[in-house]
Amino acid sequence: MRAAAQARLDSLTKPLGALGRLEALAVQLCSIQGTLTPMLTAAHVVVFAGDHGAADRGVSAYPKAVTAQMVANFSAGGAAINVLARVHQVELMVVDAGVDADTSNMPLVVDCKIARGTRDYTIEPAMTLAQCEKALRTGAQTARSVSAKGCNVIALGEMGIGNTGAASLLMHGITGHPLELCVGRGTGLDDAGVTRKLSLLETARCRAPLAKTAIELLTEFGGFEIAMLTGCILEAAALRCTIVIDGFTVSVAAALAAALQSAVLDYCVFSHRSAEQAHRALLTQLQVEPLLDLGLRLGEGTGAVLALPLLRAAVAVTREMATFESAGVSGKSDT
Amino acid sequence: MRAAAQARLDSLTKPLGALGRLEALAVQLCSIQGTLTPMLTAAHVVVFAGDHGAADRGVSAYPKAVTAQMVANFSAGGAAINVLARVHQVELMVVDAGVDADTSNMPLVVDCKIARGTRDYTIEPAMTLAQCEKALRTGAQTARSVSAKGCNVIALGEMGIGNTGAASLLMHGITGHPLELCVGRGTGLDDAGVTRKLSLLETARCRAPLAKTAIELLTEFGGFEIAMLTGCILEAAALRCTIVIDGFTVSVAAALAAALQSAVLDYCVFSHRSAEQAHRALLTQLQVEPLLDLGLRLGEGTGAVLALPLLRAAVAVTREMATFESAGVSGKSDT
Repeated sequence: MRAAAQARLDSLTKPLGALGRLEALAVQLCSIQGTLTPMLTAAHVVVFAGDHGAADRGVSAYPKAVTAQMVANFSAGGAAINVLARVHQVELMVVDAGVDADTSNMPLVVDCKIARGTRDYTIEPAMTLAQCEKALRTGAQTARSVSAKGCNVIALGEMGIGNTGAASLLMHGITGHPLELCVGRGTGLDDAGVTRKLSLLETARCRAPLAKTAIELLTEFGGFEIAMLTGCILEAAALRCTIVIDGFTVSVAAALAAALQSAVLDYCVFSHRSAEQAHRALLTQLQVEPLLDLGLRLGEGTGAVLALPLLRAAVAVTREMATFESAGVSGKSDT
Repeated sequence: MRAAAQARLDSLTKPLGALGRLEALAVQLCSIQGTLTPMLTAAHVVVFAGDHGAADRGVSAYPKAVTAQMVANFSAGGAAINVLARVHQVELMVVDAGVDADTSNMPLVVDCKIARGTRDYTIEPAMTLAQCEKALRTGAQTARSVSAKGCNVIALGEMGIGNTGAASLLMHGITGHPLELCVGRGTGLDDAGVTRKLSLLETARCRAPLAKTAIELLTEFGGFEIAMLTGCILEAAALRCTIVIDGFTVSVAAALAAALQSAVLDYCVFSHRSAEQAHRALLTQLQVEPLLDLGLRLGEGTGAVLALPLLRAAVAVTREMATFESAGVSGKSDT
């Protein structure tokens, strides 16, 4: 299918390869859907939100309460992801994976709370194995429910004060990269803050040095939103959905999913390279090239939704452009 | 206005600067429109097409006839720019600036033909001064006519077999960069083709070594579509339109316009860095950072239209996001 898709693109009225990265994207979308006339239907962005016990220790520039406040902001329609989803006509779903607050009265928010935040990974496992498995199943169920609405392209995002710290531990565990290469500024730590964050993450890693598998790592370091993202990615790939990966934390979930089932990466489009410095190393490790490089570091699925118009463009080009033959355009000169 | 726009962005519910390049874009759009609530209305993409006398000498991988064939393809709706304009809801206008064929029976194509192609710049000036001035005026008139339809954001594209060769000569003349740094593969020349192209361009430059100003350079090396682009950019800036610049050739027109009136660059958004190697050096020279880097090398305005959703996103974020205060979200911790 990849060869057939490239042959189709080569027949269209443009110089060979002239649409650059958009052509590789078109080939991937044809391959995912098993057709030369791919379509993107009922695009959704799903934002999983959860709190982290370790957030109280100062791994983030923002207080833990901001997770619930931002979920309320999503519910009220005022966050960046709301605005971007509206402007690019993407349906937004917010999943409470484990926010440390009552979100049951918030419109738009689906209550899948595992617990009110994970435990502090610097002193004990972030969650139990049963909680981890439940979060993975819930993420998979979310993929099925979105797919059942006719959606075949899912953009993924997250919200969770402190979750880049968890993501750093997970990246370290799954890639073997030194912890200091896996750590960044998150929502905006200064140098002293990054040093403190790294020190806390080292403490956590020393507490649980034997965690190796994706499940073990998730159980030790969390969070619930990352586990749900992992389950969602696995199931969305099984459903042959196109999965649009956002920034660092969602990319870590993709790396965990790939560790469990390597074929999932075939279904993932990496939307952007974020300003979080570890993201670049992770994308390189995964051997993927993101579409955008805009210095984003917001999360929420914002980068994924910003990239969606490129996917729509790739699909439209493949389906709708004239061929050299149909348009009566001459090919390359013999030179 | 720039400071006020940044202050507005800083008040929105996201970490400071977390939307990266999109924030700089939002500041620019506020500044262009002189408001903290910018809007993009009636987006148009205008593609100027023209032929080049030197194309018969082998400065392009494609025969000269392809210009007219592609204009017919635009008219029939089958080219990449047609597809992208449809998918991103942009109105397409095609201007015959000087195609070496009769386009008068082609729907969608506006007949502004200066002549049936420029003259061969390797042996004589590409156009007369009167033709050059007429082309500049016609480009300005195009900007006015599009603006009169309520459009305040104009994406610009071009079609013309051989026009990267003319653009290389113009870039060399306006920047002083060595000619070999201004030359690239165009639509797909191999190494021998690039060597031949460079040799022809050196011949042309030696014929007219004294051409220095934008007008002198356009007159010597053409083409009509590049002169119209230059006039269009100057007038669109005067009308306070946002001008979305496509790839190498349109960027050269922007550089010529900036040489005549440096403030025009404030109104230009550089949509992408193309695969044409000289484009990178030109963007650096202009001190601008493009939004996309997708290896595109098609022209037609395709990169400009692909970037438009980012402009729409930047505007929507500025207008619609909640502030920390309105959403009751806590600010950064004192750390």
